[in-house]
Amino acid sequence: MTPKTRIIGLLTDFGIRGSHYVSSMKAVISKICSNSKIIDVSHTVKPFSIIEASYIIKSTYHLFPEETIFIYVIDPGVGSERNVIALKTEDNFYFIGPDNGILPNALKSGILECYKIQNDKYFHHPVSNTFHGRDIMAPIGAHIANNISLKEFGPSLDPQYLVQVSIPLEYDTRLNSVLCTIQYVDNFGNITTNIPLVNESTIEPLSVNLKKTSTIKFTLNKQNHRGKFTTHFSEAKKNEILFLKGSTGYLEISKNQANLAQEMSIKSGMGLKLKIL
Amino acid sequence: MTPKTRIIGLLTDFGIRGSHYVSSMKAVISKICSNSKIIDVSHTVKPFSIIEASYIIKSTYHLFPEETIFIYVIDPGVGSERNVIALKTEDNFYFIGPDNGILPNALKSGILECYKIQNDKYFHHPVSNTFHGRDIMAPIGAHIANNISLKEFGPSLDPQYLVQVSIPLEYDTRLNSVLCTIQYVDNFGNITTNIPLVNESTIEPLSVNLKKTSTIKFTLNKQNHRGKFTTHFSEAKKNEILFLKGSTGYLEISKNQANLAQEMSIKSGMGLKLKIL
Amino acid sequence: MTPKTRIIGLLTDFGIRGSHYVSSMKAVISKICSNSKIIDVSHTVKPFSIIEASYIIKSTYHLFPEETIFIYVIDPGVGSERNVIALKTEDNFYFIGPDNGILPNALKSGILECYKIQNDKYFHHPVSNTFHGRDIMAPIGAHIANNISLKEFGPSLDPQYLVQVSIPLEYDTRLNSVLCTIQYVDNFGNITTNIPLVNESTIEPLSVNLKKTSTIKFTLNKQNHRGKFTTHFSEAKKNEILFLKGSTGYLEISKNQANLAQEMSIKSGMGLKLKIL
Repeated sequence: MTPKTRIIGLLTDFGIRGSHYVSSMKAVISKICSNSKIIDVSHTVKPFSIIEASYIIKSTYHLFPEETIFIYVIDPGVGSERNVIALKTEDNFYFIGPDNGILPNALKSGILECYKIQNDKYFHHPVSNTFHGRDIMAPIGAHIANNISLKEFGPSLDPQYLVQVSIPLEYDTRLNSVLCTIQYVDNFGNITTNIPLVNESTIEPLSVNLKKTSTIKFTLNKQNHRGKFTTHFSEAKKNEILFLKGSTGYLEISKNQANLAQEMSIKSGMGLKLKIL
Repeated sequence: MTPKTRIIGLLTDFGIRGSHYVSSMKAVISKICSNSKIIDVSHTVKPFSIIEASYIIKSTYHLFPEETIFIYVIDPGVGSERNVIALKTEDNFYFIGPDNGILPNALKSGILECYKIQNDKYFHHPVSNTFHGRDIMAPIGAHIANNISLKEFGPSLDPQYLVQVSIPLEYDTRLNSVLCTIQYVDNFGNITTNIPLVNESTIEPLSVNLKKTSTIKFTLNKQNHRGKFTTHFSEAKKNEILFLKGSTGYLEISKNQANLAQEMSIKSGMGLKLKIL
Repeated sequence: MTPKTRIIGLLTDFGIRGSHYVSSMKAVISKICSNSKIIDVSHTVKPFSIIEASYIIKSTYHLFPEETIFIYVIDPGVGSERNVIALKTEDNFYFIGPDNGILPNALKSGILECYKIQNDKYFHHPVSNTFHGRDIMAPIGAHIANNISLKEFGPSLDPQYLVQVSIPLEYDTRLNSVLCTIQYVDNFGNITTNIPLVNESTIEPLSVNLKKTSTIKFTLNKQNHRGKFTTHFSEAKKNEILFLKGSTGYLEISKNQANLAQEMSIKSGMGLKLKIL
């Protein structure tokens, strides 16, 4: 019987000049598991950005077939005492990467099993000090694709002890405002906040149901800006600021056919206070 | 019998910060059709550029094996009333994307069947307002790879009613000149016009057969420039402007070992008047 | 019996605006050999850089499974009299590309067979003057994946006559200094020299064994800089210059959590004189 082809998704902050680091990981994977199918989730995460990495994982992983194995290499602490972990979620996905706060912010389900990766029998040798993506995480991912059990890789770790990094999101029901964090900014200049919208238009903690006439205000560099909530780009005039539910489920700020993020120098990680009028 | 592996080609304007949008599409495709083979045609089309998208499709698609399925997501009108279409060409390729003028400028053969995509049974749910690439086009492409007939997706559309966008190209036989459009500018600074060269060196509508001694003139920002027609970069001196038949069959303007497009701030979509001396 | 799936690795300098050139090569390959598996080694080699291409090949190819076929298209001489070659190494890898000095700087083992590619029966037609990656190298790679013998492609070439390009690296044992060449600069600003470190910390020709207290000095634009040798980023303070053995085995210069290459405008190809104190 032909073994099932497993998908391995790769997420890194190696950037456009780091393609050969990515291909090094693919080479190591291909050597261990020749029939896996590798998909690049993204390699343009901002260097060391826990926020962007969390955002990309949480907005993509559930789209993949179950049993997909994700390797994320956003790893500012490489070579320090930080753990590398391998875990399986209750919704049946696998994740391998540094224990640095990304996963607790990204997973939509509970964790079934979690292990510290320590068994160097499964590593690529010699193990470098600066590229554990290639030497530890890639081979472990390939061994999982070969159906090696997670428990082979090291001692189990209680998920409640995973490193936690908090990404600010504070609702003020009295003022009808939110202090949120910018999770991502894309090539079009769309600015993705970390405010989830439920049922197309509801900010639940504020009990606010945004309508097409709702106006949202924010202040940046002492300048006030405001825009209308809408459901489609095409409903805004050219160059008008608009708020809408982005494709990943969060409130986004955009300018129709212009690059708002560039104009306002907004980057992921920034805090922003929005007031619903 | 093992089903045939179908190739799915992806073309988008998501850019280097939009890789996770691309991987979202790949995830959706992989879930529906596990044995397709996805090839990235390009994801660095200039945002919303109908001209660049047309150029890339027309200069690549016929290189692929027959039955390849192309999904193009250059979609400034997402969420508006524009149609999403699925069609099969007479030369046996499939295309899925918005009806916005790209395909009529790109296809080298007639259209065998064409349908408006409307049957949400084949969509990825919930369908967002801003990312039909992931929610409509990707799943439809995967279903085609699974041999679902195009007619399942919606009502047929007479190809003569596809949206037409005209890309300027005007020949003046009296003055021996052409008003052309820049279709693309690459990393090397090569500037690709939309003037096709037949048999290596013939501009047919002008009945001009370019020789290695032919000089071509153009004016940009009130400055005159001229260069010789040649067949190889290596025939020009360093930093000399040269004209040659590019690898995609069109007249290109370059500077040997320098970036002409950057020096002259030439971008795709610009018009340029060339005079053959 | 199912034929073995061969991996084809692609390395080019086409850059982010040249993705459609890459996909053109993949299309041609897929048409000739439908069950090959294509891996992008890198497409962001600096245009025409023999040094970067050599560096990337030598630091990645041995990670791939044996029998992998590499096509490298860093080809400033396209259309000139330069040869295109196909060769097999003693460690069982295949390489196809222009004979321009890259391979002699990159291979870690001897060459078993080497041929000039001339038999146009195996080319993609019509053969353009400017894109041999698509018209010659890609199809030859695919035919090798189909188990066509190298000798079918043209006359054999004695490897000792391959074009040699020397990349400066001069040791001065009296002064304990090295005049080296920058091979690569990545997105994090890590600067990779061409000084190999043996056993984690030994510069062999100088008989120097770097310790954690070793200081290295260099001069750039008449300014002196110095940094400590270390084994992990995490051992340096933020913004401190540090030297360490990079993941590809060479001495690297970095700044902890800052982009040193950008700050100092250091680019690949530059020479740098390091003095070990």
